[in-house]
Amino acid sequence: MERYEIRLSGSGGQGIITAAIILAEAAGIYDGKFVCQTQSYGPEARGGASKAEVVISDVEIDYPKAVKPDLLLAMNQKACDTYLFDMKPTGVLIVDSTLVKQLPTTRAVSLPFTRIARETFGKEFVANIIALAALVALTGVVSPSSLEAAVLARVPPGTEDMNRKALEAGIDAARQHLAQPTDTMIDADSLDE
Amino acid sequence: MERYEIRLSGSGGQGIITAAIILAEAAGIYDGKFVCQTQSYGPEARGGASKAEVVISDVEIDYPKAVKPDLLLAMNQKACDTYLFDMKPTGVLIVDSTLVKQLPTTRAVSLPFTRIARETFGKEFVANIIALAALVALTGVVSPSSLEAAVLARVPPGTEDMNRKALEAGIDAARQHLAQPTDTMIDADSLDE
Repeated sequence: MERYEIRLSGSGGQGIITAAIILAEAAGIYDGKFVCQTQSYGPEARGGASKAEVVISDVEIDYPKAVKPDLLLAMNQKACDTYLFDMKPTGVLIVDSTLVKQLPTTRAVSLPFTRIARETFGKEFVANIIALAALVALTGVVSPSSLEAAVLARVPPGTEDMNRKALEAGIDAARQHLAQPTDTMIDADSLDE
Repeated sequence: MERYEIRLSGSGGQGIITAAIILAEAAGIYDGKFVCQTQSYGPEARGGASKAEVVISDVEIDYPKAVKPDLLLAMNQKACDTYLFDMKPTGVLIVDSTLVKQLPTTRAVSLPFTRIARETFGKEFVANIIALAALVALTGVVSPSSLEAAVLARVPPGTEDMNRKALEAGIDAARQHLAQPTDTMIDADSLDE
């Protein structure tokens, strides 16, 4: 893996930065890769779509921010609309279908992270962990065991069990996506045409 | 403020990344500056000194990482030893005297953040918030009200009161430092000689 750029995006309360830190720690501390994790704030930072980025590499990283993301997670419509066009043409787009109703492309992976969080756990704020688990199951960008270790090291004490179940729920959602007819699956190869 | 670089450093469990995010949100969301917040992990990430950086500017930021920190917070000895030599010659060094016993320079600001956390709150993990409050009181890098708003927006629900008191404890510690004889005070002007 020479350089793999991930952008996680959504609104302020959706745990985007926490998700990025967990992913960075899974890759850097547990998988032993080089990682840079960043977030930027400009004068427009109040409200709107926020993003947090993770760059993972087998070699030292020169520029720490995402330039053309290989993977975009959009947790709401505004984030999807704002950040889609930066993506690499062959990039993977994963959206929270609870909050992204207008899909910009048929090859988006659309999974109801927030609805699962609400219905299974009664807590929408675990949607970020469910999304992380699905993202890792679909892309293999870090190992599942590294993700679990990083999640459990970073979440508040006493919430480990819920977060472990959130990880399972995300993996299940990813499996259900993969079991769908192929025209809705990620098919990066077909994009090289 | 053209470009001001801050590096927060310590060991994994000391809340360095959380502190950096809070500081970045205080500057970016509440003070309306341009901010980049980063952390990097290399293959050596397991154990040792970790760091998180915040670059604050009135103009857009080109390179998001600290090159020559204007301000270094070292929460343990290893972090102090590791990162001191990157600092700008006129930079401000703030250390946690509970865990940094060997001061590299007499102009370090040495305050017992971890001891205050333990003795006042019975919880060492609030040392990062105490340190942030002292750092802001000593340098004015963000406004105190922005710091408080950012802390309260980021800490777990139910801990707001404790964190508000931790902020006060940090400001008190900074005031006591400023009341000491001048030869232990920050005196950046004398460094230009």
